[in-house]
Amino acid sequence: MSVEVIAVGGYQEIGKNMTAVKVGADVVIFDMGLDINKLKLRVNQDISRLHSLDLIEDGIIPDDTLMRDVDGKVKAIVCTHGHLDHIGAISKLAHRYDAPIIATQYTLKLIEQIINEEKKFKVNNSLQLLNPGEKYQISPYLVLEFIRSTHSIPQSVIATLHTPEGIVIYANDFKFDNHQKISSPPDYNRFLELGRKGVLTLITGSINIDNKSQVKNYSEIVAKMILDDILKNSLRDEIGLIVATFASNIERIQSIVDIARDSGRKIFLLGKNMDKYCSLAVDMDLLDLPKKSKIYGNPNDVDKALAKVEYKRDNYLIITDGHQGEHTSLLPRIANGKTPFNIQKHDVVVLSAPVIPTQNNIANRNLMERRLLGCGARIYPNAHVSGHACREDYRDFIQMLNPAHIIPTQGNLRMLSAFAELAEEEGYKMGKDVHVLRNGQAQVFDGGV
Amino acid sequence: MSVEVIAVGGYQEIGKNMTAVKVGADVVIFDMGLDINKLKLRVNQDISRLHSLDLIEDGIIPDDTLMRDVDGKVKAIVCTHGHLDHIGAISKLAHRYDAPIIATQYTLKLIEQIINEEKKFKVNNSLQLLNPGEKYQISPYLVLEFIRSTHSIPQSVIATLHTPEGIVIYANDFKFDNHQKISSPPDYNRFLELGRKGVLTLITGSINIDNKSQVKNYSEIVAKMILDDILKNSLRDEIGLIVATFASNIERIQSIVDIARDSGRKIFLLGKNMDKYCSLAVDMDLLDLPKKSKIYGNPNDVDKALAKVEYKRDNYLIITDGHQGEHTSLLPRIANGKTPFNIQKHDVVVLSAPVIPTQNNIANRNLMERRLLGCGARIYPNAHVSGHACREDYRDFIQMLNPAHIIPTQGNLRMLSAFAELAEEEGYKMGKDVHVLRNGQAQVFDGGV
Amino acid sequence: MSVEVIAVGGYQEIGKNMTAVKVGADVVIFDMGLDINKLKLRVNQDISRLHSLDLIEDGIIPDDTLMRDVDGKVKAIVCTHGHLDHIGAISKLAHRYDAPIIATQYTLKLIEQIINEEKKFKVNNSLQLLNPGEKYQISPYLVLEFIRSTHSIPQSVIATLHTPEGIVIYANDFKFDNHQKISSPPDYNRFLELGRKGVLTLITGSINIDNKSQVKNYSEIVAKMILDDILKNSLRDEIGLIVATFASNIERIQSIVDIARDSGRKIFLLGKNMDKYCSLAVDMDLLDLPKKSKIYGNPNDVDKALAKVEYKRDNYLIITDGHQGEHTSLLPRIANGKTPFNIQKHDVVVLSAPVIPTQNNIANRNLMERRLLGCGARIYPNAHVSGHACREDYRDFIQMLNPAHIIPTQGNLRMLSAFAELAEEEGYKMGKDVHVLRNGQAQVFDGGV
Amino acid sequence: MSVEVIAVGGYQEIGKNMTAVKVGADVVIFDMGLDINKLKLRVNQDISRLHSLDLIEDGIIPDDTLMRDVDGKVKAIVCTHGHLDHIGAISKLAHRYDAPIIATQYTLKLIEQIINEEKKFKVNNSLQLLNPGEKYQISPYLVLEFIRSTHSIPQSVIATLHTPEGIVIYANDFKFDNHQKISSPPDYNRFLELGRKGVLTLITGSINIDNKSQVKNYSEIVAKMILDDILKNSLRDEIGLIVATFASNIERIQSIVDIARDSGRKIFLLGKNMDKYCSLAVDMDLLDLPKKSKIYGNPNDVDKALAKVEYKRDNYLIITDGHQGEHTSLLPRIANGKTPFNIQKHDVVVLSAPVIPTQNNIANRNLMERRLLGCGARIYPNAHVSGHACREDYRDFIQMLNPAHIIPTQGNLRMLSAFAELAEEEGYKMGKDVHVLRNGQAQVFDGGV
Repeated sequence: MSVEVIAVGGYQEIGKNMTAVKVGADVVIFDMGLDINKLKLRVNQDISRLHSLDLIEDGIIPDDTLMRDVDGKVKAIVCTHGHLDHIGAISKLAHRYDAPIIATQYTLKLIEQIINEEKKFKVNNSLQLLNPGEKYQISPYLVLEFIRSTHSIPQSVIATLHTPEGIVIYANDFKFDNHQKISSPPDYNRFLELGRKGVLTLITGSINIDNKSQVKNYSEIVAKMILDDILKNSLRDEIGLIVATFASNIERIQSIVDIARDSGRKIFLLGKNMDKYCSLAVDMDLLDLPKKSKIYGNPNDVDKALAKVEYKRDNYLIITDGHQGEHTSLLPRIANGKTPFNIQKHDVVVLSAPVIPTQNNIANRNLMERRLLGCGARIYPNAHVSGHACREDYRDFIQMLNPAHIIPTQGNLRMLSAFAELAEEEGYKMGKDVHVLRNGQAQVFDGGV
Repeated sequence: MSVEVIAVGGYQEIGKNMTAVKVGADVVIFDMGLDINKLKLRVNQDISRLHSLDLIEDGIIPDDTLMRDVDGKVKAIVCTHGHLDHIGAISKLAHRYDAPIIATQYTLKLIEQIINEEKKFKVNNSLQLLNPGEKYQISPYLVLEFIRSTHSIPQSVIATLHTPEGIVIYANDFKFDNHQKISSPPDYNRFLELGRKGVLTLITGSINIDNKSQVKNYSEIVAKMILDDILKNSLRDEIGLIVATFASNIERIQSIVDIARDSGRKIFLLGKNMDKYCSLAVDMDLLDLPKKSKIYGNPNDVDKALAKVEYKRDNYLIITDGHQGEHTSLLPRIANGKTPFNIQKHDVVVLSAPVIPTQNNIANRNLMERRLLGCGARIYPNAHVSGHACREDYRDFIQMLNPAHIIPTQGNLRMLSAFAELAEEEGYKMGKDVHVLRNGQAQVFDGGV
Repeated sequence: MSVEVIAVGGYQEIGKNMTAVKVGADVVIFDMGLDINKLKLRVNQDISRLHSLDLIEDGIIPDDTLMRDVDGKVKAIVCTHGHLDHIGAISKLAHRYDAPIIATQYTLKLIEQIINEEKKFKVNNSLQLLNPGEKYQISPYLVLEFIRSTHSIPQSVIATLHTPEGIVIYANDFKFDNHQKISSPPDYNRFLELGRKGVLTLITGSINIDNKSQVKNYSEIVAKMILDDILKNSLRDEIGLIVATFASNIERIQSIVDIARDSGRKIFLLGKNMDKYCSLAVDMDLLDLPKKSKIYGNPNDVDKALAKVEYKRDNYLIITDGHQGEHTSLLPRIANGKTPFNIQKHDVVVLSAPVIPTQNNIANRNLMERRLLGCGARIYPNAHVSGHACREDYRDFIQMLNPAHIIPTQGNLRMLSAFAELAEEEGYKMGKDVHVLRNGQAQVFDGGV
Repeated sequence: MSVEVIAVGGYQEIGKNMTAVKVGADVVIFDMGLDINKLKLRVNQDISRLHSLDLIEDGIIPDDTLMRDVDGKVKAIVCTHGHLDHIGAISKLAHRYDAPIIATQYTLKLIEQIINEEKKFKVNNSLQLLNPGEKYQISPYLVLEFIRSTHSIPQSVIATLHTPEGIVIYANDFKFDNHQKISSPPDYNRFLELGRKGVLTLITGSINIDNKSQVKNYSEIVAKMILDDILKNSLRDEIGLIVATFASNIERIQSIVDIARDSGRKIFLLGKNMDKYCSLAVDMDLLDLPKKSKIYGNPNDVDKALAKVEYKRDNYLIITDGHQGEHTSLLPRIANGKTPFNIQKHDVVVLSAPVIPTQNNIANRNLMERRLLGCGARIYPNAHVSGHACREDYRDFIQMLNPAHIIPTQGNLRMLSAFAELAEEEGYKMGKDVHVLRNGQAQVFDGGV
């Protein structure tokens, strides 16, 4: 029985992740995501009424039309976590396959929302919960297992497919963080066990692989430390105070909230995304907010909240996103004076998020920062740690799993090549047992481990 | 009575710090340091037999010959901490002045060593201890006060000169760190008090002022976190393990030691500098080592220790310096195979120090890293936090002190200019109340605060 | 009689140049320009109806309100060339002064256009022609002289003010180019003569001063060489062909035209700016176009011309601007498919202009390039040489003029500081005879040369 | 009959080029070069007595031991030009093969020198001259053809192997320069003819492929222009004058000589390399020096010449190499004051060469520049154009040849990947018809064109 790894999306870019693994006649799809940078190039970002073929042509979702030529049947669609570059194309592509969508609870709820917002297609696939540490029989000889992992969103997993020819591991987007409050550390022991059992191939993300200044990921607890030092004085001063971060980074938001808990300031989580990700996290007991905190997603509610902050700015802490400076987000709108809250001299804005380095983001962010500075704000621009493993973490991972083959994914050619070079340092050889694929190509393993 | 700030050294470079403050006819000198980068350009780095005039011509020590034209008498030489760019020229210049050298205990001991090693000049100035928080009457109307501060060496202070015309603050090399184990946090309350009393001028270092990616300094506790994550596995594995850092960074060394304390590995602190700074710190109860730890400075002892490590590498943790890759240091010598200890595949080398970015250092460091990698080592290159305040820390400092004038020091023209721009954001104006001086120039304050 | 140099604008930025020189009771103003980058931050770029005080507050034009406190009378407004950062504020500020505007012919014509387009203020100052090499008596003891110079627009001059206290030279924006077709080389002999006579102060631009990779400016003939190699094949191939450059860079446009002259392709110069600068240059016999060439500025005409090109693309060469990617310019509009001409596979776009490196421009340009590439175009992005002197040119200039004092202008503090460092290499000392001013500050020379 | 391209060296680095092409049972080797950067890491750079196996282990020469497993006979060793990264390993490896060495005249002479200097091995291979435009029958069905090309050394060629299965083109190190004095433009017509005949595979160098600021190579005539502008004044002034460039860049040296020809200055070409490459070029009538010019390679002669220059510095122009700052080269030795000629204030040093950007070179060059500046020299650091094609040149080349397959060589994985991306823009697909090989891997073509 041959195993075939088919690179559908994410092998020439960061984003629109989708990989199919075919074992005999059964196919399992891992992730169905958006290319968010490409999406942003469209003026109108609402894609709920667009057809998948148009989105494929624009490069926004994976080109899964090649699946027609795959001689097999899709048995499951597996999503490893709830970021849009991993689940955002579900609403456009999943209905073509008669297969359940399998994910953890937090991820499933986000998938449900996406399906509900979709206006073009009717997505009827069943949603199947699988918890970290649990297994699921996909077909007579295929078993899926979710392994506990850490990332920058709750309930992230590393997916493992047990096949007759050996184990296939799909680990796209993870970090090794031993100090998160919401998520337990990754299940290293299971990695070691699988390594001993025999891993046929590791399919692994490549983000940060060519970061030379940082070779091991920092824990979220480092971000909390840094934020604590920044916020300690600011919480006490008679100033306005805004912290911007990713709405889905519940661990980070928990850190901010915990730092501010005893400050006397009331916490407002503002904006559509904050509402989407945080309300869900609160409902699922993942995020623990002080009693008087409020989450507002509706624009009118947000404006009312901001009016209160304007009236007595040192009574509140605003948490929002918009750190990329997109014109329609709340923080840029505040910077542009388009909300009831006006930045004053000495107000503090903490950007607990990086600039995702596209030229557009850099320009938007820069413009926003200049406007905030123009109003007199103090900006702390980089109170952040990455959610992705770094070079030496990947090396640790390879050593733990000892896979027969490695297929790097989620990166452009330079990044995949850099991963191949790391693998060569660990004794692999490009073209022999580490494989750089392009979208649309496949790697076939005939022998097994 | 006029107050005059005379820029002797460190106003066109990082290093060879020396500032004179003349109040009426009395002069106080702050720091007498080396330009270490210039020193390294000399092949023979032993300067103990060289004449000060030659060293002045080579730009290695401050050109204090201009002091002849200063119409006043030097009453005190004040050193704020024990780094060579602040005390290294004492042995060449101090004997010209009939004045005591005033410093904290750890700094004084290091000054004593420098004076003892000097072979050209006889330095007989009295050494006067002043503890943080204490005052010292320098002349009928001049009082020196040491304020508790934090930096990357123990017992660092910010010096304050109380004059009839207002307070002069000399704060060259500091960070605001609230989480050090050995040093208590800076005395912020005293800064605020002085600010209310009336600061005539703040003379402040400028390092990190143009660092755009980091605007607030990270605490040493962040370095400890990062090191802890890196070392946790490495301490357990059957590999050789070396951590390199600045020998004078006792706080960092304490962190490393504490992380390794219960690992079962015996700690060797190796090299002349480790002996110099750490033995002193142990003697003064500043550094707390596990009982079985050893410090070896003598080359023979170092070699014997390394032979032991070679025999049973997973029984030891080596702490040394040499992170800049200078050919004569221990770590580069290990990398070049010139010691009894040979790096093997998977040995770990943690560089808990930055590259001080001269072209020479970059090349040396790069060469060393490539050789270590060539032997199969894993390198963690940047497990470090800076010992210097950043842009927003400087802003906090200005807001606390509210000085009438600001004179940035220790930096090239670009850095001093960048500090002036920060001051302008806080309401100062270059040429009016923030002053960019060149070595040899003076700023006179006639009116007082 | 004292000489005072007043920094009105351009001493903290690139742009909005304006310097006043007061000799006794007479004042001469040099340049009145816009800050084009600040202007672009406004959504609505038409400033013809705006009040000068608003534009001053937004930092778009120099804050000349300080001139009220200057105890003297403005006798002349001197503009050294026709770029907007030197003449663009004439329409907003000149009417406040009862003084003629003095410039060369090409510059005067552009000033006239600006005055005519102004809708808020009535500018009645007389326009006074002065040719390179000629002198003009401004007041009993002040004589203005224009010295031939080269830059990236025709009829650029270096202005010289002969005063009883010595010569003041205002040289803001120039390069030393000995190979231009339209402009003769700078009058080096006159520089040497003035140097021998005695220059009190040189006021000089600072652009390129910190360019480390290029220390001497390249001639326009180098740009022509490079363009020739790029265009030779492209002119012959059956493809569409666009060259984008600054509309005011008549020398460059002449080069492009000369390269294409015998290719059989008809030349279209398209866009409002091309019409503005090139039609004027043709009228003044500065620009020599082949007979069948056409200049179209009116949008309808431009569209008609583009429709012709669409029909038979290899019959035409389009010259336009828009190389910065501003959304309303022609080239970005072509890239976005908003004109009758559609880029096809293999069409060539030559960007004979740099990106003026603001974040906004970088993002716009990048977006435009990606869209052009998306259509299949080949892009040559950097077929350009700078119009500004470089470090060693400035050194040559200082050596020729041997001024008693130097005042760098047009740059942020870093650039002015870098110029001061260059001057220090030539024996000057900052604060003594090289002066870094901030907008609003003045430097007084009491003694004369 | 299958065609196999074997990547021996240069597929993971810039340097040590060696590619074998096996057609049926006949093998042709293209280039046998050194990795000069690796060579420099050895303290003792004289490799004439070293064994090839040691040099292979150190990565200095290609690992041709894999040729033992190649089932075929080497029929020819073909060298495309005389740079050491293409011919430098001949003396260590060629004797293992019973095959002639085929090259152009200038290349052959340099190979002869290398063979004569070798002290470890006896190299008896016959040397076979082949001129550009000529063909040579290697075996019954293999014909080698040299096509005229341009690079930064005379008599560079692109090698073409006519096989029964189609044409194999080996084009490693070339630029498309239509304006050289010594070398005629590349034979574009022949490229087009071959393209029409059917190219099986293009093996092409990748240098400059990821240079984003320059996408089309500049002609040598641009370097001459730039040098002319720099040297015009310097030749006239009463100063010392040194131009440093690559000794093998005869075209560049010709330009410098031609610029200085009528200046009255006598030209000294100094140093061992200048002697080696330029004396040969003069003998072969490739380089045309003014009558009174002298070439000195012997250290004593060099010192005598420098003593003359010291005596009357404005009578001479020194041309030498050493622009990388290697301690033993002449220019760094002058900078260090170790020769009879001492740099004085205002002497001019033109570096008509880039820094080959290894950390070591950057540091050496920087040190040299600082020392020259310390002596008062003016430095023009970058009066240079590259000798290698750029991105759009490579695209032109692909379009001319229209090869069925492309194999990029001479670059690390990033560069080869970047070339693959360019090829994909032209319709190729990585893994299908553009192949990224690692040293030691082979690509087999079974079908022919």
